[in-house]
Amino acid sequence: MPEYKAPLRDMKFVMQELLDSETHYQKLGYEDATPDMVDAILGEAAKFTEQVIAPINQIGDEQGCTWTDGNVTTPDGFKDAYQQYVEGGWPTLSQGVEFGGQGLPHSLNTTIGEMMSAANHSFAMYPGLSHGALATIEAHGTDEQKTMFMPKLVEGTWTGTMCLTEPHCGTDLGMLRTKAELNDDGSYSLTGTKIFISAGEHDLSDNIVHIVIARIPGSPEGSKGISLFIVPKFNVNSDGSVTDKNAVTCGSIEHKMGINANATCVINFDGAKGYLIGSINKGLNCMFTFMNAARLGVANEGAAAAEASFQGALAYAKDRLQMRSISGVKNPDGPADPIIVHPDVRRMLLTQKSIAEGGRALIGYLAQLVDIDHASQNPEEKAISNAKLALLTPIAKAFLTETGLECTSHGIQVLGGHGFIKEWGMEQLMRDTKISCLYEGTTGIQALDLLARKILGSKGEILKPFAGEVAEFCQTALATEGMEEFIKPIMGYAGQWQDITQSIGAKAMQDPDEVGAASVDYLMYAGYITLAYFWAKMAKVSIDALNNGAEDKDFYEAKIKTARFYIQRILPRANGHAACIEQGAKSMMELDEEHFSF
Amino acid sequence: MPEYKAPLRDMKFVMQELLDSETHYQKLGYEDATPDMVDAILGEAAKFTEQVIAPINQIGDEQGCTWTDGNVTTPDGFKDAYQQYVEGGWPTLSQGVEFGGQGLPHSLNTTIGEMMSAANHSFAMYPGLSHGALATIEAHGTDEQKTMFMPKLVEGTWTGTMCLTEPHCGTDLGMLRTKAELNDDGSYSLTGTKIFISAGEHDLSDNIVHIVIARIPGSPEGSKGISLFIVPKFNVNSDGSVTDKNAVTCGSIEHKMGINANATCVINFDGAKGYLIGSINKGLNCMFTFMNAARLGVANEGAAAAEASFQGALAYAKDRLQMRSISGVKNPDGPADPIIVHPDVRRMLLTQKSIAEGGRALIGYLAQLVDIDHASQNPEEKAISNAKLALLTPIAKAFLTETGLECTSHGIQVLGGHGFIKEWGMEQLMRDTKISCLYEGTTGIQALDLLARKILGSKGEILKPFAGEVAEFCQTALATEGMEEFIKPIMGYAGQWQDITQSIGAKAMQDPDEVGAASVDYLMYAGYITLAYFWAKMAKVSIDALNNGAEDKDFYEAKIKTARFYIQRILPRANGHAACIEQGAKSMMELDEEHFSF
Repeated sequence: MPEYKAPLRDMKFVMQELLDSETHYQKLGYEDATPDMVDAILGEAAKFTEQVIAPINQIGDEQGCTWTDGNVTTPDGFKDAYQQYVEGGWPTLSQGVEFGGQGLPHSLNTTIGEMMSAANHSFAMYPGLSHGALATIEAHGTDEQKTMFMPKLVEGTWTGTMCLTEPHCGTDLGMLRTKAELNDDGSYSLTGTKIFISAGEHDLSDNIVHIVIARIPGSPEGSKGISLFIVPKFNVNSDGSVTDKNAVTCGSIEHKMGINANATCVINFDGAKGYLIGSINKGLNCMFTFMNAARLGVANEGAAAAEASFQGALAYAKDRLQMRSISGVKNPDGPADPIIVHPDVRRMLLTQKSIAEGGRALIGYLAQLVDIDHASQNPEEKAISNAKLALLTPIAKAFLTETGLECTSHGIQVLGGHGFIKEWGMEQLMRDTKISCLYEGTTGIQALDLLARKILGSKGEILKPFAGEVAEFCQTALATEGMEEFIKPIMGYAGQWQDITQSIGAKAMQDPDEVGAASVDYLMYAGYITLAYFWAKMAKVSIDALNNGAEDKDFYEAKIKTARFYIQRILPRANGHAACIEQGAKSMMELDEEHFSF
Repeated sequence: MPEYKAPLRDMKFVMQELLDSETHYQKLGYEDATPDMVDAILGEAAKFTEQVIAPINQIGDEQGCTWTDGNVTTPDGFKDAYQQYVEGGWPTLSQGVEFGGQGLPHSLNTTIGEMMSAANHSFAMYPGLSHGALATIEAHGTDEQKTMFMPKLVEGTWTGTMCLTEPHCGTDLGMLRTKAELNDDGSYSLTGTKIFISAGEHDLSDNIVHIVIARIPGSPEGSKGISLFIVPKFNVNSDGSVTDKNAVTCGSIEHKMGINANATCVINFDGAKGYLIGSINKGLNCMFTFMNAARLGVANEGAAAAEASFQGALAYAKDRLQMRSISGVKNPDGPADPIIVHPDVRRMLLTQKSIAEGGRALIGYLAQLVDIDHASQNPEEKAISNAKLALLTPIAKAFLTETGLECTSHGIQVLGGHGFIKEWGMEQLMRDTKISCLYEGTTGIQALDLLARKILGSKGEILKPFAGEVAEFCQTALATEGMEEFIKPIMGYAGQWQDITQSIGAKAMQDPDEVGAASVDYLMYAGYITLAYFWAKMAKVSIDALNNGAEDKDFYEAKIKTARFYIQRILPRANGHAACIEQGAKSMMELDEEHFSF
């Protein structure tokens, strides 16, 4: 099993050197988030994830969750680890002080989220889902609902879920059938079946708070008739104390490709008591408020998987002796050279490294935008920041999960046949990561969100703040010696990106299917360029550090070399996507449904 | 679970219309392989794989093999299915009549191999491995060895294995430690441990014939001191009757990502009786004779996986109602449109379809080259044919398994969250297929074989016969109306392919690591162009058929449209690979081993 080690040096590089978190936190009034405090928390989180969470990752996969008569048992060690997680105060970190939280910034939590997910994807999902439920109640709940549910959720002794999908509808939530009927006391009775409910039932917490979308009889059809409800597993008094069991049951759990230690549940509501949250028929709007944060969390899983797989593959590649380097023996005292001498092994390792570190930078940047959304008092700053967040979130979600999946596949390849054996832990990473390309909207859905809803929907306006930032950086950074090799390619692609966008927009006027036909290639294209921008920024910070006589020379030189690898050997993949987009929709749409097979 | 249906119409198109198997078989003296006979055999094979092999695929994955005290039990139904396989005479199909075979061509067996692998990858491996053992004994064994081992292997009541890998050596076989000491009776005593032995122990057959590489004491070090041995599980008299148990034991079986129903064994030889096969110290040469056939078998698994995943995804995409088509409602009577209306779903389906069908054409072509190698009496024809086979085998193996894996990932995506659930069978295809990128030489090893050993090793000579064939086809086919859209892009890429090859050759003179740095991108680049050639050939056959008033119009039109999709939306990926290759090795090699992480 690969031993997880939190990449603290690189995390601090991203937060403090690349993104100047000190100034960022000060500006937003996060006074407690001093560099010393951030360092201390990251250090503790590293210890916790390395020593408590990572060691139960493999047994979690082997044992999975078990369902008996509606109860779900998590694998050995999960209950104890979750208790330590609560006792360590981790759930409270970025929650508001009024409900018992520590009031620290969201972006700090995001970095810890990467550690959690890299160490144990299944475990990390339990608190991850609580976070979504919490955010929903905080933003849209009444004061009474907050009193009832927030403190225990913040504390972590209760957990949360999001109940959206039904057997016949996943992406198309407008088709949902779960109904919510008004009771005399103002509460609702919910009846229906939800599927794919992650952490829907388990033995880690005292209560589970389901956030459920349902239709109130008489509401409009489709997505305009959806309301949102809080439905607890155990009923809750208005002071937050627990009473009897609600009519919520777990009908079964799914057997899956991966994330076996996180229970994916069928949840039945049989006249379960629920509380309307937000306005009637505005349920989807309330949910969309948090879509960016949730999708950013999934993007983080993609980058985390790349990091975890990189660590396992790197350790093996340094240790495994096989063949000699073609450019001369490197390990004359051994029977063969370590496989890290072979160019193609390096290609795979550097692909993993450049996606993991580039992804970390992109996610760190987006997490700061989420901080701004939460804490900024400046409406103009907030608007620009949210435009960037809206643009880059689907890119980060889909691009980092697809390339993250690719990286876990490379991790297996580096180990050869051993990568296919469970014992080594590399194949679990690939199986666990595949879900990240699916949930919170598949890659295809992210691509439509990006291209159709956001870019073409805004007539390209939404691109401008980020494109402006990239252009400004390129112009300024060109003055620094050594930056040209990074900036020039980006300037070329950035121009092409605009052209491609306009070209799709023009074609879409004739044929709306041109948008869907271009969408995933477009998203991947945009992803390669976006990550190139963050790599160029990291190269700039590193060149500056070296010019300023930094002590940690090896680190900065490695950063520059990795940037070079990304720009030279990963970014050009964008050419393939651009060439595919250029060909348009025709060949995708002309085949009759009946003629796909004979 | 997706229901497998052998794509008979398309298989016959490839064999009979694209590759004119009738003439091919006649020329080689396969008189029994008339079109009627081929059709009848394919029809029976379809029934057998659909009704006997496919239904036990999922239970095979769930149960896996179990090891108890050295014995391995296959999952429910495997023993019975294998018995039916033997009783149906399937193992004997392409074996020589002198040992009880039917003497039918290898290429017919390859098509059946696709069905077997698509229906049940794990099951298909059992006879697949026997085939390798058989071929080795037939080519290099003595008459006595043939008498001892061939009849039962041909019959299928015995199975075979290939024992190469040891714990410390996989790719680098020169490091092996298993030793073979000469006994007084001329046999050898083998001692050592082999790992990753597929079908190394199981309950399907009466005896297992291991083909083992080992070192005779006093032999040269490295790969020049390796000899090859036959080591049966049960000892065999010279007349082929079985005596006592040999000192061969199965120490354990691996727990793997996929192919759970095929036992991957640790095999211990403790002074086991073995028979030298071929000359002393020429073991690796003997093995390499069959490398092309074995790798072609694995390539077939990649294309088969694409086909199986396509079938599952297509059925779901026609059935699942979700959202409306952006270009107008297509299913007004339903609550939503089937998801096959959405362009991005079509992109995934057509990617699967074009890889599966394109792969089938490439493999069918290569299988005919294997027929020529076996049966042609014309040395010149054989030499040209073998040059093409040597060039295209690593391309087919690595390109079709990597794109096959991608296709199984698309299959999951088409089903959304359901794709991640075991019940649907789509995720098993991805887990099972990943092994095909690893065994019989990883993708990286295939790429080095192609670029370093074959292309640069022959100073480009090996490219010429196939490049000539492509050029000739392009020139001729351009005259056919409607072919320009397919031919022009291929001509462009074919020219670039030559340039890229020369450029790598020139760089490699300065720095040998340039070869390894380019290799995988080069192989994938070559793969996209190679498949484009076969798509253009299929388009040509289809246009000709339509011009000749073929009845089956829909089939040929669908073929032309799929060719168009491949040329327009898949082939341009080659641009990304070309752009990466152009950047050279520097950014891959300059990072010190110690500086990959901090």
